[in-house]
Amino acid sequence: MMKPYPPAYYADYLHLEKVLDAQMPRSAQFGKPAHDEMLFITVHQAFEIWFKQILHELDSVRALFESDFVDETRVGVAVSRLSRIAEIQKVMIDQFRILETMTPLDFLEFRDFLSPASGFQSVQFRLIENKLGLKRAQRVDFNRTSYEKRLSDEHQRLLLQSESEPSLFELLEKWLERTPFLSFGKFDFWKLYERAVSEMLAADRQTIQTNATLSDAEKTKELDGIARIEQGFAAIFDEGKHQAAIDKGERRLSYKATQAALLILLYRDEPILHLPFRLLSVLIDIDELFTTWRYRHSMMVQKMIGVKIGTGGSSGHQYLKQTVDAHRVFLDLFNLSTFLIPRSALPTLPDAVRRELGFHYGNH
Amino acid sequence: MMKPYPPAYYADYLHLEKVLDAQMPRSAQFGKPAHDEMLFITVHQAFEIWFKQILHELDSVRALFESDFVDETRVGVAVSRLSRIAEIQKVMIDQFRILETMTPLDFLEFRDFLSPASGFQSVQFRLIENKLGLKRAQRVDFNRTSYEKRLSDEHQRLLLQSESEPSLFELLEKWLERTPFLSFGKFDFWKLYERAVSEMLAADRQTIQTNATLSDAEKTKELDGIARIEQGFAAIFDEGKHQAAIDKGERRLSYKATQAALLILLYRDEPILHLPFRLLSVLIDIDELFTTWRYRHSMMVQKMIGVKIGTGGSSGHQYLKQTVDAHRVFLDLFNLSTFLIPRSALPTLPDAVRRELGFHYGNH
Amino acid sequence: MMKPYPPAYYADYLHLEKVLDAQMPRSAQFGKPAHDEMLFITVHQAFEIWFKQILHELDSVRALFESDFVDETRVGVAVSRLSRIAEIQKVMIDQFRILETMTPLDFLEFRDFLSPASGFQSVQFRLIENKLGLKRAQRVDFNRTSYEKRLSDEHQRLLLQSESEPSLFELLEKWLERTPFLSFGKFDFWKLYERAVSEMLAADRQTIQTNATLSDAEKTKELDGIARIEQGFAAIFDEGKHQAAIDKGERRLSYKATQAALLILLYRDEPILHLPFRLLSVLIDIDELFTTWRYRHSMMVQKMIGVKIGTGGSSGHQYLKQTVDAHRVFLDLFNLSTFLIPRSALPTLPDAVRRELGFHYGNH
Amino acid sequence: MMKPYPPAYYADYLHLEKVLDAQMPRSAQFGKPAHDEMLFITVHQAFEIWFKQILHELDSVRALFESDFVDETRVGVAVSRLSRIAEIQKVMIDQFRILETMTPLDFLEFRDFLSPASGFQSVQFRLIENKLGLKRAQRVDFNRTSYEKRLSDEHQRLLLQSESEPSLFELLEKWLERTPFLSFGKFDFWKLYERAVSEMLAADRQTIQTNATLSDAEKTKELDGIARIEQGFAAIFDEGKHQAAIDKGERRLSYKATQAALLILLYRDEPILHLPFRLLSVLIDIDELFTTWRYRHSMMVQKMIGVKIGTGGSSGHQYLKQTVDAHRVFLDLFNLSTFLIPRSALPTLPDAVRRELGFHYGNH
Repeated sequence: MMKPYPPAYYADYLHLEKVLDAQMPRSAQFGKPAHDEMLFITVHQAFEIWFKQILHELDSVRALFESDFVDETRVGVAVSRLSRIAEIQKVMIDQFRILETMTPLDFLEFRDFLSPASGFQSVQFRLIENKLGLKRAQRVDFNRTSYEKRLSDEHQRLLLQSESEPSLFELLEKWLERTPFLSFGKFDFWKLYERAVSEMLAADRQTIQTNATLSDAEKTKELDGIARIEQGFAAIFDEGKHQAAIDKGERRLSYKATQAALLILLYRDEPILHLPFRLLSVLIDIDELFTTWRYRHSMMVQKMIGVKIGTGGSSGHQYLKQTVDAHRVFLDLFNLSTFLIPRSALPTLPDAVRRELGFHYGNH
Repeated sequence: MMKPYPPAYYADYLHLEKVLDAQMPRSAQFGKPAHDEMLFITVHQAFEIWFKQILHELDSVRALFESDFVDETRVGVAVSRLSRIAEIQKVMIDQFRILETMTPLDFLEFRDFLSPASGFQSVQFRLIENKLGLKRAQRVDFNRTSYEKRLSDEHQRLLLQSESEPSLFELLEKWLERTPFLSFGKFDFWKLYERAVSEMLAADRQTIQTNATLSDAEKTKELDGIARIEQGFAAIFDEGKHQAAIDKGERRLSYKATQAALLILLYRDEPILHLPFRLLSVLIDIDELFTTWRYRHSMMVQKMIGVKIGTGGSSGHQYLKQTVDAHRVFLDLFNLSTFLIPRSALPTLPDAVRRELGFHYGNH
Repeated sequence: MMKPYPPAYYADYLHLEKVLDAQMPRSAQFGKPAHDEMLFITVHQAFEIWFKQILHELDSVRALFESDFVDETRVGVAVSRLSRIAEIQKVMIDQFRILETMTPLDFLEFRDFLSPASGFQSVQFRLIENKLGLKRAQRVDFNRTSYEKRLSDEHQRLLLQSESEPSLFELLEKWLERTPFLSFGKFDFWKLYERAVSEMLAADRQTIQTNATLSDAEKTKELDGIARIEQGFAAIFDEGKHQAAIDKGERRLSYKATQAALLILLYRDEPILHLPFRLLSVLIDIDELFTTWRYRHSMMVQKMIGVKIGTGGSSGHQYLKQTVDAHRVFLDLFNLSTFLIPRSALPTLPDAVRRELGFHYGNH
Repeated sequence: MMKPYPPAYYADYLHLEKVLDAQMPRSAQFGKPAHDEMLFITVHQAFEIWFKQILHELDSVRALFESDFVDETRVGVAVSRLSRIAEIQKVMIDQFRILETMTPLDFLEFRDFLSPASGFQSVQFRLIENKLGLKRAQRVDFNRTSYEKRLSDEHQRLLLQSESEPSLFELLEKWLERTPFLSFGKFDFWKLYERAVSEMLAADRQTIQTNATLSDAEKTKELDGIARIEQGFAAIFDEGKHQAAIDKGERRLSYKATQAALLILLYRDEPILHLPFRLLSVLIDIDELFTTWRYRHSMMVQKMIGVKIGTGGSSGHQYLKQTVDAHRVFLDLFNLSTFLIPRSALPTLPDAVRRELGFHYGNH
């Protein structure tokens, strides 16, 4: 197809005059060229290019969720773009295999030249964390200074700004809280779900008590197990307890958003909840993949420098290892599995509700 | 460890001011911003960064083989660096999965803006092909013009220069031809191997002729099979026939180098042949991985644009598909499996020869 | 949670007494134990286990599409299960890397013991092909005998039966043909799409003719290009031509199903078309992944045995290589990209139609 | 090639009559068929098949190291087989992606039927751990009972027996202790290495003290860093301290084996140390990959069941998570990076030593 745009040349279009002119090993600069420094630079540049792409997708998804009304089309687009982030993450995790073709001894040849630069200073990675919804208070302390301190002034500004913008976590929470399906005419999801849980536990108790093959001691032990499960559920049936858990930092997602998320997980087969279900799923995936990336990173650092301190003077892989669990953003979604009940125990949706959750076509 | 070098800052060290300032979608420039063009740019830039790294390794390996005497240490380094190329290729193959999160309809939003730029114009990929050893005559013709014609003058110069330098294929061939172990005192590998092959075939014939369960027709068929196998071997026992195959373009590796490669494959368990064996193996891997990369590329293009012409006006995936097989460089190594014989049929090395192929330590 | 089922033991539940008692290297049986035969067996058993899982998913998806009315919930389930097949395929492709840790020389140690067994005889793989929709006529001939001839009588029966059942291709075709949205009140998708294509081509012609920078020769060349594109489209606007292409074996999907598939691809953002779009996408993925699997298989065989004949007496990798392209089932979906037009050129849906394609909730 | 063996049929050779007759979902047995239970079974069977293959390789490698003299050929074979284990592990890690296509809600449909079976009962996985060298004392306690208690009597016997056999760790340790190159005529590696370390630290101190740009406070801080590094090294220069660390369970590899491993890492470029270096590297890889597998496993379990107890009544993913770090076997090799020094600081090998470490050919 013809068009009036000036013709493009591959290298110009991709601005390779910049991209391929940015690999400048310091070992060569200082007169002691180390062959493998090029790899070290290339791998990190590849990470940063992917980080930029992730930010591009993340910003666009946040924009999609910023209005009060998010129609289905937008959720579909959000899911596609978040799925792309997940695919990028898979490649980023495998990139460590390339870096690991460099041996610790080869790294030693140029390690001193990098000091005190450190992956810790990647402003893009910190921006991704902030925009996903990592909270300052949640971050693992590093040498008792706040996370942005070792970055340039300009980068610090960018980070502070990103903290003031609504994160994907917050936007998602609000969107969940707006879900209209929790009660619907006479249908009260939460009440029905609570009753289903309580019936399920009562049936379990009954089964234990009437089981002739169990000794009294075994019965007591099994019943204790049921009691523990009941306590777990109690915490989500009582808004006060839920809030208390949030205050203690054990949970983060608001009570109403948690209810909505659970509804989506349990009734995900209804057409209108299909995309919302995929949205929650892909967010869980992204969180898990970043967790895995951090984990691989910490392993790689340990392999490369042992228990020495990192290039930035950090206590290296110990710090990274702590962030693996601490820096998770959508952990509450992950843990919702705790409160799922079997489809067979699930309250049936009234026809009127079911129709509302279906497509217009063929439904009138 | 302290040192007097000026301190490095992560973003400066990686020259991110260049790398991250090089993503400029033309769709936005021309007033019709298409979200996915950023991905298109990023993926291609990531490919180019890896191409540069591959060239870095390839050039260093070629340098290692450029002297007349290549000691074992150098072969070890070469194997490490070539293995790194293979790891990079695996990641590059998976990168297509990221690109495929873009749908054909989304590509259409900005496809016109790219014209006539095309991956065909990647000078780095062409350099990799040339430096590996792809010959001009071997290349698939594209619109009946030679492969460099659509590149800039500067890029054409680089390509022509690379054609005039010794390729990895040629350096390897010379290195193989220098192998001293083909005959060694009274040991004549080639004569012994030829006898082993002939004995093996004779035994096979005997087995068939004395097999009472076979009908005459079946015997004839089986014996025809043996005859065909014999012919295959004949072609490598006769230097004239080998040369004829080279002249017809059916083979490329010289007679002597082929003999040496076969020796290495058959006696790879001897210490001194261990690294040479790994060298041949990793070259086969690299060739196979580039073949797979081309294959995935052609699939992706077909998926993205169907049977339309590519952005560069090329007949798109048909061209790419033809290159999958045609552009292989180390196919002769790949095909050496044809001439392997079981270890049990292999001539035993005389003790004196075996000692020469071992380590000095403990050997005197 | 307690329940009255008899307690399960891990090894019994998985029937490991069968699964782990099925690795019996023939090399050991015949007194010449070859270490690597175990790997050969394990890899093939792993393939067969995954094949069985794929058949489990495939059969369930075919059942979902066998009724005249397929509601959205079923499409959602089908998409999940087909996506699972795609994930399995990715792992199966990577399994070749494990097999390739066996060298050709090691394979020679036990290769003779396998004869004439061959992967060609995998009845499960043939069943997958048939149930996806591979037609007998489409299969690459192997030694001029039909594909099932070298299998046992029982396996031949299974294959013939599978040919008589509706394949996923056929079920999909019927489901597409039932799509109600092609014309809808006054909305006639096909007429509007045809007009959009014709306007797009006219605009392209106009652009060329008024482009002052082009020479007459260049204009002619560009206009020829437009004419070729027009011919391509003509073939799908004319049911007769489409049928002729089907009769010649160039196409397979019926005219009406092709129209529906194109509608889905172009208007996939409408809620009701979201799942159908994912369905077409995952089928394209599965087809592509089997193609890649076949390709990797043929490469592996070539690497392992060179140009020798395969264990089953087959001309080995040449046969496999031919099947790579020939055995594709959903190629017509793949090629639909050819007929996509930019969203900007797409006819806008009337409000009434759009409402029908949306959810019931909030829509009345 | 003809041979007198009875012809093999693919399905018989692979004993598919067993392998494919072993998938028996309990949900169906108990009248509540759950589609996804098949996947659950298949994935676990695939894991067990690969475990068996890993045991096959592991046993063969242990046998290779069981004699007092391990020649180079055996080390080469060991490296190949261990590399195969690593490739299997990569596929096993990716298999979790397949299992994760099952949602927590789908798992709930059949979860009760599995109780109390649990992956904890996989005898093959426990055997792998024991044969690699995991010590009973090192294992994470599970509900305060020893790890074998919930397995069948026969399986307990197998485990106890495996504990009494020499593990790969122990065999490797002995092999390292036998390394003849630590002192060699007048060459005393350990003395030279200690001197090199001490010179390196002195030079670092000098650099700090003469650096005019540092304040006194900064100098003190930097010098403290050097002191800490020196202490780290001290622990490996003093056999008593090393033994104390072993007694406290902080280290495991014997003093002499540690020295030998360090020598191999530092002089890996010498021909005779090439294979030993690859051996240490692949053991580090295997350890890391099992660590990653355990990590992915724990993530998957958390995702699937939240904070509920596992099918075997275990506190599920918490237990798995603790094993990730605790069950590492070759951690000491991993941590050797701590004690590497740059090649430039490395003592040069005397010519006589270098000759001993080279090949016999061309060396006399």
